[in-house]
Amino acid sequence: MSGSIDFYFDFSSPYGYFASTRIEALAAKHGRTVSWHPVLLGVVFKTTGGAPLPMVPLKGPYSLRDFERSARFHGIAYRRPAQFPLATQLAARAMLWVRQTQGDAKAVEFANAVYRAYFVDGADISQADTIIGVAAGLGLDGAALVEGAGSGSIKEALRADVDAAIARGVFGSPFMIADGEPFWGFDRFEQLDAFLKNGSI
Amino acid sequence: MSGSIDFYFDFSSPYGYFASTRIEALAAKHGRTVSWHPVLLGVVFKTTGGAPLPMVPLKGPYSLRDFERSARFHGIAYRRPAQFPLATQLAARAMLWVRQTQGDAKAVEFANAVYRAYFVDGADISQADTIIGVAAGLGLDGAALVEGAGSGSIKEALRADVDAAIARGVFGSPFMIADGEPFWGFDRFEQLDAFLKNGSI
Repeated sequence: MSGSIDFYFDFSSPYGYFASTRIEALAAKHGRTVSWHPVLLGVVFKTTGGAPLPMVPLKGPYSLRDFERSARFHGIAYRRPAQFPLATQLAARAMLWVRQTQGDAKAVEFANAVYRAYFVDGADISQADTIIGVAAGLGLDGAALVEGAGSGSIKEALRADVDAAIARGVFGSPFMIADGEPFWGFDRFEQLDAFLKNGSI
Repeated sequence: MSGSIDFYFDFSSPYGYFASTRIEALAAKHGRTVSWHPVLLGVVFKTTGGAPLPMVPLKGPYSLRDFERSARFHGIAYRRPAQFPLATQLAARAMLWVRQTQGDAKAVEFANAVYRAYFVDGADISQADTIIGVAAGLGLDGAALVEGAGSGSIKEALRADVDAAIARGVFGSPFMIADGEPFWGFDRFEQLDAFLKNGSI
C-alpha cells in the first residue's frame, strides 16, 4: 500500500495539536505522506449534535485535565490557552491561502506554527494580528495573507473541504483516513501504526 | 500508594467490556485491588446530554467499526450483539444482589459472565431468562437472584451508586478512579498503568 494519509484537524483541538506533532513521523516510518485538512468542528457539530468538550457537564472538567496529562504522558509541550475553544475559520482559511500561494510544505509549516502559537505560547489565533505575526515569523506577507484568507474563493474552498470531510464521515479532531480506514483520536495512533505496518488490524 | 481502583462500567458498553477483561491484571501488577461499580449510562446521559454512541450521526457507524477493530487489536473476544445498546438495569441490580448475598468475588465473576454472555455469545442480557441462565452457570439460584434484583432495597442501592458515581464526575464507561485521579476509556489504560507505577504522570 502507498498513498497519502488524510489528516483532519481543527486548530482549536488539543488532541488535533498533539496528533499534528507526530503524524508526519508516523507516516514517514511507513513511507507515506500526509495531506493536512483543516476543518471546522463547529460546522461538523451541526451534523452530529456534538458540542465543544469544555461545555459538556462532567466531561468538560475531565477533558481539561486529560489535555494536560496526555501532553505530559506523551512528552508534548502544551499550555492551556486562556481562550478555549475559539473560532478557527481565519486560521483554516489562512492555511488554505498559504497552500494555494506557497505550496503544501509551507502550508504545513504554517499549520504547525499556528498550533504552537495557540497551545504553547497561548496566543489568540482567532485574531488577525496573531495570524499576521505567525505568518511574518515564516517570512510570509501577513497583510496579503489576511486579505487572501478573506476572499470569496478561499471561503468557498474551506466550505467545500469541510463538507467533503463530513461526507467522508469525519466527526472529530484529529481524524485520520488511510486507505479508506478511518481513525478518530490521537489515542488511535497505535492502531493507525499497526494498520500502516500490516495493511489491516 | 495503595488502595482499591474504582472501576465504573455499563453492561451495555463494549469499551467497558474490553476494560473488564484487563482491569484486574493491571491492578494486580501494581499490588492494587479493584472495586467494580455497575452504572447506568442512560441516567448519566441525563446529566451530561450524552447519547448512546450508535445513535450519534457519523460517530455511530465509526464506533461500531472501532469496537471490532479495537477488540482485534487488543486480542479480546468480541462479537457485535444483535441488540445494542440495551437496558442494563437488571444486570446491574443482579450484580449488586450477588455481591450482597455471595460476596464481592462472586459478584465480579457474575459481572464477567454477563459481559461474556452479551459481547461474546450475543445473548440479550436485558431479559430475565438470560440473567437466570448466567446465574445458573455460576451455581447461583437464578429465580432468587431475579427476585432479589427487583427488590426495593437493591433498586435504591443502584440508584444511590449511580448518583454517587455522577457526583464523582463519572460520565462514561469505562471510567477508573485511582487515588482520586480519573481516567476515562479503555484507551487510557496506558496512562493508568503509568500513574499506578509512578504515582503521577
